[in-house]
Formats: sequence, structure tokens, C-alpha cells
Amino acid sequence: MGEVISEGDDVLIYLSGDKRWLITVKADKRIHTHAGYIECSSILGKRYGDAVKTNLGRTFWLLKPTIEDYVLKCERKTQVVYPKDMGLIVAKTGLASGSIVVEAGTGSGALTMFLANIVKPNGHVYSIEVKEEFLDVARRNLKRSRLLDYVTLSLGDASQGFGVSEADAAILDVGDPWRFVEAAWRALKGSGKIVSISPTMNQVEKTCEAMFRVGFADVECVEVLVRGLQVKTGATRPATRMVGHTAYITFARKVLGGEKTLKEGVAESMDVVSDEEG
Amino acid sequence: MGEVISEGDDVLIYLSGDKRWLITVKADKRIHTHAGYIECSSILGKRYGDAVKTNLGRTFWLLKPTIEDYVLKCERKTQVVYPKDMGLIVAKTGLASGSIVVEAGTGSGALTMFLANIVKPNGHVYSIEVKEEFLDVARRNLKRSRLLDYVTLSLGDASQGFGVSEADAAILDVGDPWRFVEAAWRALKGSGKIVSISPTMNQVEKTCEAMFRVGFADVECVEVLVRGLQVKTGATRPATRMVGHTAYITFARKVLGGEKTLKEGVAESMDVVSDEEG
Amino acid sequence: MGEVISEGDDVLIYLSGDKRWLITVKADKRIHTHAGYIECSSILGKRYGDAVKTNLGRTFWLLKPTIEDYVLKCERKTQVVYPKDMGLIVAKTGLASGSIVVEAGTGSGALTMFLANIVKPNGHVYSIEVKEEFLDVARRNLKRSRLLDYVTLSLGDASQGFGVSEADAAILDVGDPWRFVEAAWRALKGSGKIVSISPTMNQVEKTCEAMFRVGFADVECVEVLVRGLQVKTGATRPATRMVGHTAYITFARKVLGGEKTLKEGVAESMDVVSDEEG
Amino acid sequence: MGEVISEGDDVLIYLSGDKRWLITVKADKRIHTHAGYIECSSILGKRYGDAVKTNLGRTFWLLKPTIEDYVLKCERKTQVVYPKDMGLIVAKTGLASGSIVVEAGTGSGALTMFLANIVKPNGHVYSIEVKEEFLDVARRNLKRSRLLDYVTLSLGDASQGFGVSEADAAILDVGDPWRFVEAAWRALKGSGKIVSISPTMNQVEKTCEAMFRVGFADVECVEVLVRGLQVKTGATRPATRMVGHTAYITFARKVLGGEKTLKEGVAESMDVVSDEEG
Repeated sequence: MGEVISEGDDVLIYLSGDKRWLITVKADKRIHTHAGYIECSSILGKRYGDAVKTNLGRTFWLLKPTIEDYVLKCERKTQVVYPKDMGLIVAKTGLASGSIVVEAGTGSGALTMFLANIVKPNGHVYSIEVKEEFLDVARRNLKRSRLLDYVTLSLGDASQGFGVSEADAAILDVGDPWRFVEAAWRALKGSGKIVSISPTMNQVEKTCEAMFRVGFADVECVEVLVRGLQVKTGATRPATRMVGHTAYITFARKVLGGEKTLKEGVAESMDVVSDEEG
Repeated sequence: MGEVISEGDDVLIYLSGDKRWLITVKADKRIHTHAGYIECSSILGKRYGDAVKTNLGRTFWLLKPTIEDYVLKCERKTQVVYPKDMGLIVAKTGLASGSIVVEAGTGSGALTMFLANIVKPNGHVYSIEVKEEFLDVARRNLKRSRLLDYVTLSLGDASQGFGVSEADAAILDVGDPWRFVEAAWRALKGSGKIVSISPTMNQVEKTCEAMFRVGFADVECVEVLVRGLQVKTGATRPATRMVGHTAYITFARKVLGGEKTLKEGVAESMDVVSDEEG
Repeated sequence: MGEVISEGDDVLIYLSGDKRWLITVKADKRIHTHAGYIECSSILGKRYGDAVKTNLGRTFWLLKPTIEDYVLKCERKTQVVYPKDMGLIVAKTGLASGSIVVEAGTGSGALTMFLANIVKPNGHVYSIEVKEEFLDVARRNLKRSRLLDYVTLSLGDASQGFGVSEADAAILDVGDPWRFVEAAWRALKGSGKIVSISPTMNQVEKTCEAMFRVGFADVECVEVLVRGLQVKTGATRPATRMVGHTAYITFARKVLGGEKTLKEGVAESMDVVSDEEG
Repeated sequence: MGEVISEGDDVLIYLSGDKRWLITVKADKRIHTHAGYIECSSILGKRYGDAVKTNLGRTFWLLKPTIEDYVLKCERKTQVVYPKDMGLIVAKTGLASGSIVVEAGTGSGALTMFLANIVKPNGHVYSIEVKEEFLDVARRNLKRSRLLDYVTLSLGDASQGFGVSEADAAILDVGDPWRFVEAAWRALKGSGKIVSISPTMNQVEKTCEAMFRVGFADVECVEVLVRGLQVKTGATRPATRMVGHTAYITFARKVLGGEKTLKEGVAESMDVVSDEEG
């Protein structure tokens, strides 16, 4: 009935809604909230799922953090990919335990954490970032979520090559993804998936062009909208506010063959993309 | 540069858009399409990502099926969960290799396949279905996608118990999920995630009530909308048609404690759910 | 090239985005903004469309308020109907100059203003409100937008009757619209349109039931989502935030005939509504 | 209780859902449907809202067509603007009885009908179309809906001028709206509204650029999504399918002043448009 919480474990202290804190248990720590404080010593020996009371008598739950909690609570220097988008990336790439992934644009490492959690323990994520300060943040986030063992972080320009071959998927989370499409092609195995994440439609246009030119088929671009439902018996309704846009996500698969074959095969694909809606 | 395709391998024969076929390679088989036929013998020895031509000269790509392809091409007797919803379930539960999952309502086994692919090789999915004919379909789908080893299928009424304890997640994909909430609570470990998938708001109301009553906190209900972007340089626009609704997905986490604690803690959560929008 | 602005005219002082003020020109008034002040005397004699500078040298435009500006800037005691929803109501009811409309639930009068603007100068809106304090607000809003001549405001319970017959449309903007459906039926002419505006699905269920029971056909319920596009050459993207929900809007048309005919005709309609999606 | 239906009147024969027919009553006509036929002679003398039975005993309602029915049932040679988009155009322009509107791109005249219905009887719509065959269709649609008196249709290139001045609104429903922005500016009065309707983001980019350059402020671009709610007591849910995209609609207001003023004022507006989301 729940793992016992020990010194050094992570706990999500949960009150309600956005009122939640991700902490690491240290016997001599005191957690302050607007609803009173909790002594960490009172958490030790409890189980995940148990309740604890603040000095003011408010009930908090001690939850075991999931990867989503680590993502939402991570230290961030950049706009991070949303869980809704991360989920679709896993669903459409087929990434699973054992997969090899390359990533251009580590940023704060949020997506890197999520990917590492999926491919562990036998897979690996190779992530390249051009800004050293972002790498430091990402390293801290990966360490905290205990996923650093499944990730290799490198400083550099991934458009010059990922230093990996036969990868199952290549993720581009950079401002100019079209510049990285060729390096992604070289890093992937045949039929491997490329994924590009961009907020503007102009980025998508350039990236799709590059994909068709370099040798990718089954190009598909989508956006994900998540809307909350506010559930109250007899008064259930969609939430008043929602996130209107985070990014377009473009998916495609690496194809092989000489230039002539590529042209013929890709022409078939493109025809369809452009004719579909008349 | 791509695995070599051998007798018995699965291949996604891809032309464009919806024109794609999931086949198992048998040397003496011939694949018929509206754009001509392909001899399977001509596929043997090619690599995933290679092209092949039909007798009419049309170029097809030989792609390695992902879990999404198996889901979209699976044999179905029931409405199956969409990849967009599957992705969010993984993102929000934190399921990964090694996780233990229980599922009420195997249906055609599409979601079961997806979950098995995420938890393999060390995790396991225990799925219970009340209709024998659905179990047969699910078994065939799991076998085809080579995931049956990671799944235990049972005939029965999961509301009487899943026969498992300390599970990481419990998935309810049935018409009356509120009846299964208590069995899910017993099957889960403390802080474990429950997920309920239902098309109507009335089902969601009843299920959320049951969750609060039985002992779940952090209850959240959402719907996922995916919209395609039709990319054509200089004429990019959202797709004309889209899926308007599949299901509401409700997430929550098991909490422990006597009745009094539950009431106090859950009251805090409920307050917020109902007050959030005023 | 633009009407000349005189004493007593309304002007929308526009800087950018949300920075806009709806004022009535009075020669001796000074308009204060975060970007400096403007003397009203400097506006007199200018034309709508002209620019004016603040004492700090910032350029503001002098725009002629539209009905949307009056709605967005109206004094409000209640949640007001959004322009997106108002537009659909006009499009689907066919309201136009000369139409007769009854409204239950004047609220702050925002929708009343909008309807009056459409039916003027020969049509009329009869609006009934149960709270006197709301009527006072509505009266001020209608007066300011110069639409009070086309509206009759009454204090009372519209469920007891609108005191009007042969209306073209009946609008229900109340918390319990099902209670007003019969009075709306009596106020409408044959084939006249009823419109009900409600945030929750539970209200919609009860209201649709009442409509079928009382004698309405062609019942249709929708929600309207408006998403902004953030246009910047080379970096165009949907807006980050959007309104996720305001209200469901239900439309139907009054039908006649004895109880038996109603039952038969409505049964046909209901069959379809419920079977459509299986 | 409902107007009496006479020879030559239009009637919407309504069964359920999409099963509805817009007819003109002629005593000797017989209306055939999949559910049997109706003799028009049996409709004469009935009132709008009454029921009629087919020879097979199915109940149909006799409804009075609204402008939406005329739009949805109009003869069409082109993609027509949807009611959802028409509604927003009226809501955001403030068009009402007496308004003067110019339109570039009559197409099949669906939007023209809708605008004429709003501005009648004292306003007018001047619509210019470059293809004679479209004008013929539009003329028939306007005649059928009895709105031709409020519209002047012309063959020509509206980018050369609308031949009107002091218009309240200018509507661009053409493939290259940026070419018409200057002519629209000349046709409008100061502070008058321009509206451009385009399916692609690239068209929107070019049109917004032209608006800022020519002299428009308060530029805003949106898209409207309408989703049906399938109401069934105890099983209410959003509709499975929906229209994903029709068009982006861009709104702005004409501003005056020399080149220098325009630059200063517009720079303020543009700053905000581009900075809003960071």
C-alpha cells in the first residue's frame, strides 16, 4: 500500500489545483506554504499517498512525482515543450524502452527528460545544445529526475552532425529546424522518424521543404489543443481559459534510394499533401 | 542504413496520405493496390526505407511499422482509443518501461498494445474484458504486434477486482467506469494513477464523484483536439476537416488515510475544482 | 472623408491592442492615459479616423465606436454574452431590421444592445429581467449606445409570459432556461426561433428536453471558439492564449399542431439527433 | 399564430437533421423525398410552423426560411462563406440597417445575401466580381431570397476602385486581397471597417502588411471554430466530426493623416501586435 518515503526521496506535496510543490525530503527541512508549514521529519516513514497536516491543520497529500511533475516543475531558461505535445511525439514515433534518440536543442532539458524516461533503461538520448548555460540547466533537471544516466549532453552545432547513426528518432527543437534536417537524416536508420517542433507556420513551411528535399516521406504536421472540463455534478462545463497554441509538430520518416527514386516517391507524397483539400 | 527485410517481417507499404498497407512479408505473396501490384519476393533483402515499384511503375516506400501503425491498422470490433489520447495518457501517468498497469475493458486491444509497448520488456499489462469475442480480437492484435508476452488477458468483470496489487496505473475504458473505481483503488499502489476514458460528460460526472468518494486526489479531466496543418509553401492552412471529439480523459491519483482524512483532503481538492472559474 | 466630431459624440481613443478608451467628448474634459493626456478640446472638429497626440507625443487614433466597442466597454454587473456568440445568434436566427425579439434575462444589457442595433429602426426588443439593479445598468448601457428607443425593459418573471405575441425570436439568457421555454413558445410566431445561452451541459440537456416537449423542431446546440492569429511577416502563429468556453448556444424553431402531431414530428427529429454519431 | 402560406411563398420542408428542402410553393407541384412525396396544394393555406404528412405518413414541418437557410441552400459555383464567419463579420463591423457596404468578390453571392439582409431596407451593398458566370449565379441567389433590391452587382476589377465613397465597411473575399486594400481605403469613410477573408496564413500576412502600409489601424485576425453538442439526456457529448477550418478573417479600421502620422500611429499598433506573446 505505497512505498515508504525516506531521506532524499522526492515528494509532490499536493493541496489542490496549482497548489503543489515538488520537494526533496531532508529530515531537518521545513516546507512553507500559504496554508502553513510542514516539517519534513513528519514525512519520513509515511507512504506515498498518505496525508500530512500543516501546523495550521490543512491536509496535504504526499504524492510520488511522475515525469509530468518533473517537467512542469523543472528549472527553465527556455520555453519548454508541453506534456500534451510530448505525449503525441511518443505516440507517433513509437519510441519505447531501448530506443535511440538524437535531439537538436536541449534547451532546459524538459523534453529530454521525458524522452529518457521512455527509452530507459536500455535506450539512450543524445542531445546537443549550442548554449552552454542551457546545458547546465538541463543537466540539473536530468539529475534531479534521476535520468542523467540515459542521456549524453553535448555542446555544439547539431546541424554539423549528431555523431550517432542508426537512431530510431531525431527530434528538432530549435528555431531554424530546416538547417538540421540533413544531419537528422544521416543520424537516423532507414524508416526512422524525424520530429520538428516550431511555433510559427513559416518555420513549418521551410522545414517541410527541407524534409522532402533531403529524403523523408509520410510528412504530417499537426497541432494539439487540450481543453479542460470543469466537472461539478449538475454544472459541468469546459474550462473558461485554455492554451491556444504552443507549437506545430511535424513528423516524417527517413527514406532511402538514389536521387531519381526520391524525386519520384516524394512527388507522389507531395501530390497528395497539396491536393487533399482541393 | 536500415535493417534488411526478411520473410515474416511486417512492412508498411506507403504510397501517400491514407494509401498505406500493413503486410507481413511472405515470399510467394503478391500485394494488390489501386496503383498496381508488388511481388513480396521483390521486397525480401531490401531495407526499411527503400523504395519498390509496382508493375505499373508507381513508387512505394517500405517502412517499418511503428506502434501507431499497428494501432491504426488493427482489427477492430469496438471504437478504439486514438493515438492522440494514448499519448496524453502516457505523458500524464508517467508510464515507462517496468510499469505495472491494469486495464478494465480490453476491447479490440488497441490501447493495450500501446501500453504494452511502453512498459515492455520488464513491465506488464493486466487487461480484463467481459466479452469473449473482444478478447479474441485483442489477442490477435497483440500477437501480430509481437506484444502478447507483456500482457495477461482475462475474461471477467474487473469491477470485482483486478487480481493485482501495487499497480502503477489503472485504465478504465468501459461504458460505466464509475463501477470500476473502487476495484482500481485496490489494485493501485499509493499515489498510483487512475485514468478513465469516456465520450459523454454524464459519464465523467459520475466517475469523478466515485473518485472523490473512494479516495483519489488531483482529479483532472481534459479532452484532446488534434488539427492537421496542410503545408504548401505560400499556401499553408489548417486542414478543412478534423475529428471533433473522441473522449474525455479523466486522471487522478490514489490517496490513503482513514475516512476522516479523506473527507478533509478531498474537500480541499473539490473546493478548487468547483471554484476555479467562479 | 470622415464625419466631424462634435460636442457630445462618442469616440474610441485607440492606441494599440487593449489600450483603447470609449469616451464622450466634452470640450472641457481631459483624457488621462498611461501614455499621456489629451485635451477633448483638441478633438472637436477632427474627423473620425484622424490622429491626435498626447502631451507626451504619443499618437492615438480617434475611431467611431461600433456596437462591439459599446458591448466590450459597457458597464457590467453580470457575465455578458461575447461578440462571437452574438454574431452566431444573428446569423442563425436571421434577425434583421424590423424583427421583433423577446429576451428573458436582460442582465447588463450587452446582448440587448446588440439585438437592438440589428432590428432598428423598425423592429423592437422586449427584454424582461427579474433584478431591478440589472435593469438600471442595462438602461444606462442602452442609453449610452443610443439604442434605448428600440427596447422595452421590464421588471418581472418572463416565465409567466413575455406580454408579446408573433415575435420573430425569443432569447433566453438565464440560469434556468428550461423554465422559460413555454412562455417563449407562446410569444413566438409559427416557425419563430428560440435561442438559449448556457455555460453548462446540464442546463442544455434540460432545455432541449423542454423544447422537444413544448413544441420546437430543428433543435441544434453548438459552441463557438475564436482563436486569434498573431500575424508577423515570417513569424505568423496562432495566439498563445484563448477563451476556452463561454456558453453553449441552443437554437430551435417553434412548430404547431396538436399533441399527437407534435409527438410524431418531434420523434422524427429526436431519432436523428440521437442516432447521428452511433 | 403563424403566417398563412400562399402560392409563390418559400417554405423549408423539414424532416430532421440534414433532411430539409427549400422550395417555392406552386399549387401543381409535387415534392419528392426519400420519405414519400407531398402535394404543394396541401401546403397552401397552412401556416408556417404547421405539419404536413407525406403519402407514406411521415411528418414534415413547414418552416419559414431564414437567411441562413437561403445561404446553406443557395446555388453555388464557389466556396461560400460559412454562417459562423458571417455572424462574426456582422458582430465586429457593427453593420446594421442603413449601412453602406462594398464587397470585392461576389462569388456565388452567399455573403452578399447575408449582408443585404442586415443593411436593408435603407442600406446598400455594392458588390464587384470579375467573373460574369459568378455574377449570374449571385443574381439568381439574391433574387430568390428577395434581396436583389438592396444590392448593386457589377462586373469588373474592384482593385481599380469600388466607385463608392464613405462606405461603412469593405469586404474582401478574393484570392489576393492585398491587391484590393488601397481601393477599399478609398471607398471607406474615416474609421470604416475593412474585412478580409482568406483560407491561408500566407494571404493573411500579405494582407496585413498592405493594411499597415495603406492606412488601417486596430488590425486583428481570427478564426472561428464551431463545434456541435450532441444532446441526449444522460449521454451528452460533443459531435464526433467538425469543420476544422474555413478561413481566417482579418479586421481593421481606416485611419487618416499624412504619411508621417500614419507611420507613427501604425508603428505603435504594430509594436503591440508583434510583442504581445514575446
